[in-house]
Amino acid sequence: MAGFREECGVVGVIGDPDAAKLIYLGLHALQHRGQEAAGIVTLNGGEEFTGHKAFGLVGDSFPNEIIARLEGSSGVGHNRYSTTGGSRLTQNIQPFTFNTAIGNIAIAHNGNLTNAYMIRQELEAMGSIFQSTSDTEVFMHLLARSDKADVLERMVEVMSKVKGAYSLVILTKDRLYALRDPFGFRPLVFGRRGSAVVVASESCALELLDADFDREILPGEIIEIFPDGLVKSHHPFPNARKGFCSFEPVYFARPDSQVFGEEIYNLRKRMGQVLARETAVDADVVIAVPDSGFPMALGYANEAGIPMEIGLVRNPYVGRTFIEPSQSIRDFGVKLKLSPVRSTLYGKRVIVVDDSLVRGTTSLKILRMLRKAGAKEIHMRLGSPPITHSCYFGVDTPERDQLMAATNTAEEIREFIGADTLGFLSLEGLREALGEQNANNYCYGCFTGNYPEDPCRTITPQATDAMGGPGLKAGF
Amino acid sequence: MAGFREECGVVGVIGDPDAAKLIYLGLHALQHRGQEAAGIVTLNGGEEFTGHKAFGLVGDSFPNEIIARLEGSSGVGHNRYSTTGGSRLTQNIQPFTFNTAIGNIAIAHNGNLTNAYMIRQELEAMGSIFQSTSDTEVFMHLLARSDKADVLERMVEVMSKVKGAYSLVILTKDRLYALRDPFGFRPLVFGRRGSAVVVASESCALELLDADFDREILPGEIIEIFPDGLVKSHHPFPNARKGFCSFEPVYFARPDSQVFGEEIYNLRKRMGQVLARETAVDADVVIAVPDSGFPMALGYANEAGIPMEIGLVRNPYVGRTFIEPSQSIRDFGVKLKLSPVRSTLYGKRVIVVDDSLVRGTTSLKILRMLRKAGAKEIHMRLGSPPITHSCYFGVDTPERDQLMAATNTAEEIREFIGADTLGFLSLEGLREALGEQNANNYCYGCFTGNYPEDPCRTITPQATDAMGGPGLKAGF
Amino acid sequence: MAGFREECGVVGVIGDPDAAKLIYLGLHALQHRGQEAAGIVTLNGGEEFTGHKAFGLVGDSFPNEIIARLEGSSGVGHNRYSTTGGSRLTQNIQPFTFNTAIGNIAIAHNGNLTNAYMIRQELEAMGSIFQSTSDTEVFMHLLARSDKADVLERMVEVMSKVKGAYSLVILTKDRLYALRDPFGFRPLVFGRRGSAVVVASESCALELLDADFDREILPGEIIEIFPDGLVKSHHPFPNARKGFCSFEPVYFARPDSQVFGEEIYNLRKRMGQVLARETAVDADVVIAVPDSGFPMALGYANEAGIPMEIGLVRNPYVGRTFIEPSQSIRDFGVKLKLSPVRSTLYGKRVIVVDDSLVRGTTSLKILRMLRKAGAKEIHMRLGSPPITHSCYFGVDTPERDQLMAATNTAEEIREFIGADTLGFLSLEGLREALGEQNANNYCYGCFTGNYPEDPCRTITPQATDAMGGPGLKAGF
Amino acid sequence: MAGFREECGVVGVIGDPDAAKLIYLGLHALQHRGQEAAGIVTLNGGEEFTGHKAFGLVGDSFPNEIIARLEGSSGVGHNRYSTTGGSRLTQNIQPFTFNTAIGNIAIAHNGNLTNAYMIRQELEAMGSIFQSTSDTEVFMHLLARSDKADVLERMVEVMSKVKGAYSLVILTKDRLYALRDPFGFRPLVFGRRGSAVVVASESCALELLDADFDREILPGEIIEIFPDGLVKSHHPFPNARKGFCSFEPVYFARPDSQVFGEEIYNLRKRMGQVLARETAVDADVVIAVPDSGFPMALGYANEAGIPMEIGLVRNPYVGRTFIEPSQSIRDFGVKLKLSPVRSTLYGKRVIVVDDSLVRGTTSLKILRMLRKAGAKEIHMRLGSPPITHSCYFGVDTPERDQLMAATNTAEEIREFIGADTLGFLSLEGLREALGEQNANNYCYGCFTGNYPEDPCRTITPQATDAMGGPGLKAGF
Repeated sequence: MAGFREECGVVGVIGDPDAAKLIYLGLHALQHRGQEAAGIVTLNGGEEFTGHKAFGLVGDSFPNEIIARLEGSSGVGHNRYSTTGGSRLTQNIQPFTFNTAIGNIAIAHNGNLTNAYMIRQELEAMGSIFQSTSDTEVFMHLLARSDKADVLERMVEVMSKVKGAYSLVILTKDRLYALRDPFGFRPLVFGRRGSAVVVASESCALELLDADFDREILPGEIIEIFPDGLVKSHHPFPNARKGFCSFEPVYFARPDSQVFGEEIYNLRKRMGQVLARETAVDADVVIAVPDSGFPMALGYANEAGIPMEIGLVRNPYVGRTFIEPSQSIRDFGVKLKLSPVRSTLYGKRVIVVDDSLVRGTTSLKILRMLRKAGAKEIHMRLGSPPITHSCYFGVDTPERDQLMAATNTAEEIREFIGADTLGFLSLEGLREALGEQNANNYCYGCFTGNYPEDPCRTITPQATDAMGGPGLKAGF
Repeated sequence: MAGFREECGVVGVIGDPDAAKLIYLGLHALQHRGQEAAGIVTLNGGEEFTGHKAFGLVGDSFPNEIIARLEGSSGVGHNRYSTTGGSRLTQNIQPFTFNTAIGNIAIAHNGNLTNAYMIRQELEAMGSIFQSTSDTEVFMHLLARSDKADVLERMVEVMSKVKGAYSLVILTKDRLYALRDPFGFRPLVFGRRGSAVVVASESCALELLDADFDREILPGEIIEIFPDGLVKSHHPFPNARKGFCSFEPVYFARPDSQVFGEEIYNLRKRMGQVLARETAVDADVVIAVPDSGFPMALGYANEAGIPMEIGLVRNPYVGRTFIEPSQSIRDFGVKLKLSPVRSTLYGKRVIVVDDSLVRGTTSLKILRMLRKAGAKEIHMRLGSPPITHSCYFGVDTPERDQLMAATNTAEEIREFIGADTLGFLSLEGLREALGEQNANNYCYGCFTGNYPEDPCRTITPQATDAMGGPGLKAGF
Repeated sequence: MAGFREECGVVGVIGDPDAAKLIYLGLHALQHRGQEAAGIVTLNGGEEFTGHKAFGLVGDSFPNEIIARLEGSSGVGHNRYSTTGGSRLTQNIQPFTFNTAIGNIAIAHNGNLTNAYMIRQELEAMGSIFQSTSDTEVFMHLLARSDKADVLERMVEVMSKVKGAYSLVILTKDRLYALRDPFGFRPLVFGRRGSAVVVASESCALELLDADFDREILPGEIIEIFPDGLVKSHHPFPNARKGFCSFEPVYFARPDSQVFGEEIYNLRKRMGQVLARETAVDADVVIAVPDSGFPMALGYANEAGIPMEIGLVRNPYVGRTFIEPSQSIRDFGVKLKLSPVRSTLYGKRVIVVDDSLVRGTTSLKILRMLRKAGAKEIHMRLGSPPITHSCYFGVDTPERDQLMAATNTAEEIREFIGADTLGFLSLEGLREALGEQNANNYCYGCFTGNYPEDPCRTITPQATDAMGGPGLKAGF
Repeated sequence: MAGFREECGVVGVIGDPDAAKLIYLGLHALQHRGQEAAGIVTLNGGEEFTGHKAFGLVGDSFPNEIIARLEGSSGVGHNRYSTTGGSRLTQNIQPFTFNTAIGNIAIAHNGNLTNAYMIRQELEAMGSIFQSTSDTEVFMHLLARSDKADVLERMVEVMSKVKGAYSLVILTKDRLYALRDPFGFRPLVFGRRGSAVVVASESCALELLDADFDREILPGEIIEIFPDGLVKSHHPFPNARKGFCSFEPVYFARPDSQVFGEEIYNLRKRMGQVLARETAVDADVVIAVPDSGFPMALGYANEAGIPMEIGLVRNPYVGRTFIEPSQSIRDFGVKLKLSPVRSTLYGKRVIVVDDSLVRGTTSLKILRMLRKAGAKEIHMRLGSPPITHSCYFGVDTPERDQLMAATNTAEEIREFIGADTLGFLSLEGLREALGEQNANNYCYGCFTGNYPEDPCRTITPQATDAMGGPGLKAGF
């Protein structure tokens, strides 16, 4: 409900005869990073890829007979976020596969290249043909056009040309590569499962697969993984400035994942604790907006010494497919997903903890529901600073004018959502929660407008998805 | 995961031109009471019913064009639990509709008639034809065969003949009836939405519809509701012994529902508190098995003065349709649904609170997961007494020999699941949590084997579903 | 395209371990008798039925895994015609199964009971419950309520009570019965496949199954078939007046079927020959309206000594699912199904032969198409007399006011459809084609309004489908 | 059933606001040219394409809401044949769309480029990326890489490089191009519908759309069509040798189509007439194998003076989706599709006319069926010469060793299929039927092994579909 949406999750496996099954389970563990579509490509001996792509959750759309067909001991997989428009482009579902002079290549990408449009125009002028609107295709064209002999050298060359965020898994006939842009915007980890190696966006995927967490891929690093489990590290961009996405610990990553050096659950509890110190208020009860607000609310309650209670229950049956009545008598919206626990709320002074506030409309509806259930006072607390700017590095954000905090003061927001008091975690508080030694390695662009790298907005007329200038719009 | 499954949820609406939409939303709120199938029948002027029935969640299988087709200002709806066998009988999806001499009647039933088989044999001998294997059809045949002139009198006559559990909504051309067996095994409530009246299994459905909770239908009561909102109460069996199902507050009912006189969330917190007093142990942290264990764990933690933390995260994308890999390398089972939060568990003495223990296999897997994540001690606590007997009053329970506590001592269970200590809420503790004045009104049959009414097992060869003796098995 | 629709086809098998497969194939051979839905019920040892019902063609909706589930060596199947309204009632798909005091019974019915409504009212007054709107259910209730001890005696009793058309297959735990109303309105045949016996509406189903045609069930006969292949004939109504449907040879039955004593192809060619004698005209070429008009056109061409050519080609890809553009620029209608062969038509005097004319609108469109393709003269010839009355004996006919010939003279019809001349086969001509010795055994009600039995219209407010007076309308 | 399968049908429309609807209907008329999949792409103002692609018949998979979404006044469409393997590649469904330096281009292709593999290897070496295994992508890459400024000049350049068969429709932002390889292997026609222009593989599509047939695109011609209906012809390869596919009039094209200068129905009747003269035999009756054998059988019967009858009836309900019982008791094969008319066959000397004989197995089954129905003598007649070689110009043919006539004498074939006599149309007879002045313009490669152009087999390891050498195999 946060209004920010993660772009993708990626998985790569090499050295296990059940590669497709492991990727399938890994994508399931990363389902929170993208629910629109999923794809798996495996390498079935020789150089031939087999694969399957489908819209919907990975658990719904990869029946056993499909998995069984995806033979091979290496492969890559991808979860895709939900696009904004109505168009659903099958050919935009990753992993992409390409036939090139250096062999067949499969690629899965989490992130967003900020100078893709400019490079694409140059490539088209030289006769290149594009079939999707994805920035990932630009990466592949550069790889195919490079005059270096070696795949690895080609990758380094491409990394020096493209800008933006990319955590990639790339499969060739005899290697699995995992690479991360020099800023390290998006997470990428790897681990071992016997002699097989598993790469994934977050460590929770390794946990599900019983793979032992090894370490994160470093920002700017390429790891080259051989079928026997040998891992070679190449680090052509070692000293770059870092830019870990601070919204990963705030909202995106799963609480049981370890990314950017620490378990997310711990970071969120600390955000709640700092928030409690920064925005103390006298109250009877602390409640969370489920599910993401729970760790912060626990941290808040412990720090404030106010009892934590369950004030909102989530209906677990509201999935992506729930069909809301079209000409609804009135707006059922949030009520379909959440319902109030009257005995927690009635006559109480309630502190409500959520992770972030994007558009404000969801908070408005939740607070109305709490008020109607009898809450006497409502103190809204957010575990992150006000969001004032869009992200260009792999997160699907609303336009700036729909970001509540970009155009409204805290007091205006408080009034709009109907809270008695409103408190955000400060930027300093967020840095404190992220930890002294690590705070400088994060990107806080959506809270400050200062990005570690110029997002090149002037030359990319449409940012996130539409590479095509005048281009392909829809439908295949 | 409890191993006990609720049989059904029912909704009835009269006096609102959007009856089908309201029923649809009401069934969504009651989805936890049955996920296999759903049906809605409305009365579209005159005496003609229209309806739709489908397998799957109500939110998945009632698109807007279906709802729009279900015209009328009154109707009934039903959520059905998941059958054990592989057969999926469309004609067993409720509500049932019947053409009878007293007009067309639609009926939706939560519960189980214990003497249905015997009555059915008598009716067949007199030329009656049965088309489903449902006990509900017996109720209808008795209603159709009665020689009383008035529908209400017929209902009273049938109530005196059938035994067992039934919370029913019955729609005729100009009335909505709601009735509850004299024991009141299953909940049934009603409320008002303007001049319309809404009947539902639990109050959470009224909440979603913005209907004002009026009261519970009394055990043994029939309420007769007119299109203009007039409600007449008939109470032919006023002084019967009560038998509220104690598993409703333990597990079935939603925490935000008010049933049997109190909000469930409160009852569960109290179960946790009593449990803490009865099974105190020194520990570092209290965690819940999500989601149902949360209120009890909160109650436990507060009472014990031990901090509550999140130790297990539920993957929200495991729905009913998740396809588990068939030849799975090993049992992923519980790991697909739950994952451990390492920083909560590592090196800690952990109290794990769940609502109940049925087969024990889920607990076994959870405890292994916690142990692997580093828990130093694990103290398993259950918010209800050991389950030792089957239920014959509307709950789908495993055979007795699969009930862990029916054949094993607490020490054997502790060893099987791998806990350091194990503690159940005592029967006295459960009674205490349910409240002094109300405790005698409950059925504790599954914990004690003492039922408020003889379940007539001797004459019904197959208990819950199979009415057919030599009968219809499958497929339509 | 004829505007008349057959109601159903039935199949029964006993004594073959692959009963479901044989029924499946038999229904496929009888698909022309009903395309809306299909059902198969088999008896899997003991008394338990298993079954499957689905909308759509039998070849589309019975995948192998379903067939495999339908174990047993006896069974019955049913093809259902397409209903007129939008409602699709799953519970109206046959075969029906019933639990009764005389055991479980499955039934499949081709025909229509004309006094079902009246009997149903009586049964409801005695406490019977109806679940479908089908007249077939009335037959079953009478069977269940009979006080005779023996199933066969009960059948005879029921046959003496119901009126109208019924070719039935009835399966009990140890018998397959096949019976036909005393008039023999609808066909029903049986044959042998090794020691198994197969019953079917038309002999073409036996042909596909490699079963040897034995004979037709006689009008008023009940045959009782045992699992070992023994067939006992019972003939309680031997001397009744016959009423074979004359529209079966005109249009419904497949040309390769033998029904009512002769192969249909022969009868149709004779209709064409007589038609040629009755409606001779000077012309260059004879063409058929595909596919049903072919045999008559061949007969016509041979008799007239005018060459037969292909003037209209049918597009084989127009199935029931073809989606016609909604806001079609103009009416593509018939053009989607048929296209003209210019070299056959251009500048020619063309005789067009079709089997019958119901509404006239299709003929109008076809003749326009022929004219546009250059036909100089068009002589429309129909292989049956003008249709002036509805059928109440198992055929879905338009209301009388939509029957072109009921309200228009031949000259008005000719002008409406745009033919240069128009000729119908006369009633005498039809009788001649059907054969001297057999002509009196046919019902010509739709051509004459004289039915062999009073269709009881005064007491059945809605004729064909709606048994329910004020009844169930739709949707389950 | 012929064993040869057409590769594709194409449609293009420019200048009509309902372009998508017209293309949809045109593809329906061309459905016989490809049933596996269909696609439509339209140009919705500006340069943006919208489109939809789906497996299955066009009438099944383009519902009205899809058509409505395909806005624009120009577009192209494509029907695809059924692939041999199990893999169904969504990204291989045409029309293809490409973003190139000369703008966005959509293309639909009927035919097969014989030197695609060689060119592809060269292009990959220069950094080109391929995403499908289609030869059509090679055409597009050459177009994108050309250094000519003008699209038309680029097309001419590409036509001089590629070899093989191609009838193409190509859509740019302001033009519709239609072009045909210099041999003219595959048909391509255009016509006018008001001010709009429609291009299609066969004239039957124009007929359905009420478009006036203008003329065929000439071999080697490019026509350039403007939005206002202006058509400019460019003819860079005017004097090339012709190579019209002779299997189009024998089997592929619809009988009501005019292709290669004459209506197909006429050509087929002439084939039957010549066949009758070449293979005369004394017999009682001539029958056709439905549906394609009908015109030849009529021609045969007229020439031979033997009556034509219907001896085989086609079951119209056997579509592509018919599910044949897996563990079928015995081979039902042909019986599911065809059934014998006993009265035509019993005791008769029968001449059976079919268009061609590929594998011989279908003929074998048909003749067995006829024999079992009582045919006394069976004289098999084929309206084309023995097929002895594969096609490399756009037809999906079996490997040579599966072509019955490639490895067997006529006498061996006769014995195999069980005919009393067997007669093929001779090559000279086929030329005679095709007409003196036109016979030299045809390709008879499948009958003779002499192709108008070397099919370059030595350098393309896998012929028809697999461009990828070691390449992409399956699944997306």
